[in-house]
Amino acid sequence: MPAYALLLEYDGAPFVGWQRQASGLSVQEVIETAAAKLNRGTPPVAVAAGRTDAGVHAEGQVAQIEIAADLPPERVREALNFHTRPHPVAVLRAARAPEGFSARFSATLRGYRYRILNRPARPALDLGRVWHVQQPLDAEAMHAAAQALLGRHDFSAYRAAACQAKTALRTLDRLSVSRLGEEVVVQAEARSFLHHQVRNMVGTLAQVGLGRRPVSWPRAVLDGRDRTRAGPTAPPEGLTFTFVRYAEPLDWR
Amino acid sequence: MPAYALLLEYDGAPFVGWQRQASGLSVQEVIETAAAKLNRGTPPVAVAAGRTDAGVHAEGQVAQIEIAADLPPERVREALNFHTRPHPVAVLRAARAPEGFSARFSATLRGYRYRILNRPARPALDLGRVWHVQQPLDAEAMHAAAQALLGRHDFSAYRAAACQAKTALRTLDRLSVSRLGEEVVVQAEARSFLHHQVRNMVGTLAQVGLGRRPVSWPRAVLDGRDRTRAGPTAPPEGLTFTFVRYAEPLDWR
Repeated sequence: MPAYALLLEYDGAPFVGWQRQASGLSVQEVIETAAAKLNRGTPPVAVAAGRTDAGVHAEGQVAQIEIAADLPPERVREALNFHTRPHPVAVLRAARAPEGFSARFSATLRGYRYRILNRPARPALDLGRVWHVQQPLDAEAMHAAAQALLGRHDFSAYRAAACQAKTALRTLDRLSVSRLGEEVVVQAEARSFLHHQVRNMVGTLAQVGLGRRPVSWPRAVLDGRDRTRAGPTAPPEGLTFTFVRYAEPLDWR
Repeated sequence: MPAYALLLEYDGAPFVGWQRQASGLSVQEVIETAAAKLNRGTPPVAVAAGRTDAGVHAEGQVAQIEIAADLPPERVREALNFHTRPHPVAVLRAARAPEGFSARFSATLRGYRYRILNRPARPALDLGRVWHVQQPLDAEAMHAAAQALLGRHDFSAYRAAACQAKTALRTLDRLSVSRLGEEVVVQAEARSFLHHQVRNMVGTLAQVGLGRRPVSWPRAVLDGRDRTRAGPTAPPEGLTFTFVRYAEPLDWR
């Protein structure tokens, strides 16, 4: 059966996350249900580059499906955008998946953005899109602390208790913190991340930004490999999965 | 009674617009109901710089209220942000209104931004924040057409039938159109606008962007002073009231 890669944008707010769960509607179910219309009524299995949590958004998630119909990618995109309505999930582009392609295992780099709204007034326009922190954050101190986490390390201290990865060894390629007016934006890039790794790093860096911990602390937490010593997990709504890179570029339509 | 100016941000989606109406909840009612808590239970009348329509957003609306309590502006901001919950209305700043100040009549410049998402795929993350136009728009042609509308003119052709202004003479100081990736953004500035003027100008410029009308057409429509000759009114959700300027700057807290 022809395999397709899908470039997805979604608002995480109404979903239980990417993955199918009995407790509610997932992005995976929305995509699979829509794709069933192109697959003689049988929902295909959709595999994603990143299994985003409930409330986490995506502007560049990549998922993979096989469907019985041999259609041009443009038609797959249009048909899925029709059948996913009215859910806030859009197929930005579609591509034929090359032989041996895996949306999940072929990925060579993944990117996330974490937005913190740092002002006294609560969010109105960005409600559900940002973590609201009222006290002033020192973004420069957060950035300096973040640089000590780059490279290949055992990230056990920044891993969720429920994380199912066999090893906590990961290579962090980018963790930059910058201020844009009232926003503090964290950008993280790695080949892969552990469950909650970005949110745990952001929650820990925020303790430095608030002046409660020294710049050296996030690295000391890393070296301790003990999750209970890190800062609290930052809430999901500030996080957006921004991009996935593959060694072999896809022919997006 | 002490008068205060309020700098407001709101998501227009759940409201019938700024102004109180029997048909549903308005931003004005949210502000007045919250302010009643500071005014011995009596809702004060809130007057706004711009009476935004249903679905139109604001990131820099200015409103004015009088309340019986003589409070520092910071306290007014904090109290209103508490009492406006859970509505997507935030008081970004508050200031003492100077003697003779009117949020509406003292304004010397108002700014609006109109966002068009110009791509095949429907919006997911920006649902309710953009006008979705699937066919490619020529933003440069739209910008060129817009420049012919600048200056002082009778804008009858771009005025809503329900517009209550005594005269249609307005001075348009800025109407710029630019492309930012998949978005076409229109920025409009004037001392004041007629009802639906920005949305009617955007709807007319879009006809040029789609290649259905020549660059000279929006000016010809202006000169004809006939609303029925202009393009359709662009939908409200793409519009955001971005700022108000006053001759005498306010001491925002």
